[in-house]
Amino acid sequence: VDNHFIGIDVGGTTIKAGIVDAESRVIGLVSLPTCAARGQDYGLQQMELAARQALATAGIDVAQIAAIGVAVPGPLDLEMGVMLEPPNLKPWRNVPVRSHLAQAFGLPVVFQNDANAAAYGEFCAGAGRGARSLVMFTLGTGIGCGIVVEGRLLGGRHSHGAESGHMRIEIDKPRPCACGRAGCLEAYASVTALLARAREALSQERSSSLFKIPSADLTSEVIFQEASNCDSLADRLVEETAFYLAIGAVNLMHTIDPDVVVFGGGMAEAGGDLLNRIRRHIAREAFPVPAAKTSIRLAELGPKAGVIGAAGWARAVLGEAHLRR
Amino acid sequence: VDNHFIGIDVGGTTIKAGIVDAESRVIGLVSLPTCAARGQDYGLQQMELAARQALATAGIDVAQIAAIGVAVPGPLDLEMGVMLEPPNLKPWRNVPVRSHLAQAFGLPVVFQNDANAAAYGEFCAGAGRGARSLVMFTLGTGIGCGIVVEGRLLGGRHSHGAESGHMRIEIDKPRPCACGRAGCLEAYASVTALLARAREALSQERSSSLFKIPSADLTSEVIFQEASNCDSLADRLVEETAFYLAIGAVNLMHTIDPDVVVFGGGMAEAGGDLLNRIRRHIAREAFPVPAAKTSIRLAELGPKAGVIGAAGWARAVLGEAHLRR
Repeated sequence: VDNHFIGIDVGGTTIKAGIVDAESRVIGLVSLPTCAARGQDYGLQQMELAARQALATAGIDVAQIAAIGVAVPGPLDLEMGVMLEPPNLKPWRNVPVRSHLAQAFGLPVVFQNDANAAAYGEFCAGAGRGARSLVMFTLGTGIGCGIVVEGRLLGGRHSHGAESGHMRIEIDKPRPCACGRAGCLEAYASVTALLARAREALSQERSSSLFKIPSADLTSEVIFQEASNCDSLADRLVEETAFYLAIGAVNLMHTIDPDVVVFGGGMAEAGGDLLNRIRRHIAREAFPVPAAKTSIRLAELGPKAGVIGAAGWARAVLGEAHLRR
Repeated sequence: VDNHFIGIDVGGTTIKAGIVDAESRVIGLVSLPTCAARGQDYGLQQMELAARQALATAGIDVAQIAAIGVAVPGPLDLEMGVMLEPPNLKPWRNVPVRSHLAQAFGLPVVFQNDANAAAYGEFCAGAGRGARSLVMFTLGTGIGCGIVVEGRLLGGRHSHGAESGHMRIEIDKPRPCACGRAGCLEAYASVTALLARAREALSQERSSSLFKIPSADLTSEVIFQEASNCDSLADRLVEETAFYLAIGAVNLMHTIDPDVVVFGGGMAEAGGDLLNRIRRHIAREAFPVPAAKTSIRLAELGPKAGVIGAAGWARAVLGEAHLRR
């Protein structure tokens, strides 16, 4: 019976695919290089190939698959099922992911952006299990965000739902953001922003242990490590990062008011006591009721979140379509 | 047949009630004084009386009513149907609005906060007609917010959904907010904030025509009037207000991504070209797609929005309950 789903997660370096069952378990997870520079037709072939390999590895026939869920980097057009111009996948442009996969497999394809898919994965099977509403921040080069409201992903009316890495948290002296605007959360609390703030500070404070580290070796991991070694500059940088992330979380707690706020991505996992620092700032910055009742958690699914969430959202959308009939 | 609804809107000075039909038309709108100082039992009686007078005025029998919708000032406990400690309705505390009205009329009662109800009213019958998702800001002493996502009011999991007047837009030099925190949108763009900024500026700039106005007579209307008379300080104050409101709107466009953002409340209506100023800032501050596609509008229902929205939300919740059976 067709109660399995293919989940595909398209990233800047790899394309992952897996077979996901009704309990959100992943079977036959495979990973292929994206090789974006080879162009989007090659990319579409890699997506198809990853899915076929996942089926073979899992020993599942395509007849057992109800639908395909795909997670891709934005910006995208949800309604058209097309990736627009993903900055990390040059030179891709207007990539018809949904129609290509629908034709290749003869299956319904449900399309979503990667941060939303990861949030839905955590909602189904990770840090958000049992919740009805969830906000997730994925901390990396940028800050991705995904929002689930009463079980439904918030995709937005123009495919710009949950782009909350680009909510402005500073108007007076805004830091420039990679998006071309200024003052965005991402310009303060992404890995890129942390490193930029570190470099600025190091031009002033030469007593820090970070000063001895060659600029090319300065990573968020090193900063977190030195913070745990009581370097005062590293500690300040981590504390500021926690504060900025708490402001982002509180702004969404006062807007979405979810059951749980999840932090994922490399920096969250490597961040040692980052989560507890964030929690302390949230306790001060949020209204008493959400401060007391909202659960603040680390992501649990790691790199599988996108595959699980893409497949899970396909299952949810298909279920609703059945209900409407 | 029971296809009418009673909408009740509890405010700091008046309690309004009206009979709302399936097309969101209001019949028999009545308004009674709240007299909060007389206590909450008196308040509950006034709500009941307003509803009975609305029925009598409209010539509608209670048997024709399917449910009652009530809009009340926050904070509240949506699940319990209780108002907690509304700052504008002292000394009310833990007011059992839902159970009182349910018992008085033998009808289902659906409870919501006032800014959310106003947003739902505009969604059903005002500036958001035809939209699927909407964000509304109500500009007054504070900044109320209401959010509709795919036809459903965003109440939140702890009754704190759409409290986005208290999203932080400034971290470096945050202005203190009436909520006890700092840097909130409300601390920049409410009527209270506009007047506070005006007074601060007037302590420096004595050439403005605003300087001749006695402090007690300084209102947002006067500032908008003088801005249209080309007073440069008044113009700057209005322009800054528009900028702050645009930041608030953009933050929610990048989170909710609605079809329409609605500005309501006295200051929005009296604000002359305020809406066009807000639109210009949004065009600069938002991502290109939502900037181009999101409609930015003034509220249309004025003081009826709460009654229409409270009743409309009762109709929606009741309809869903029927579907689930």
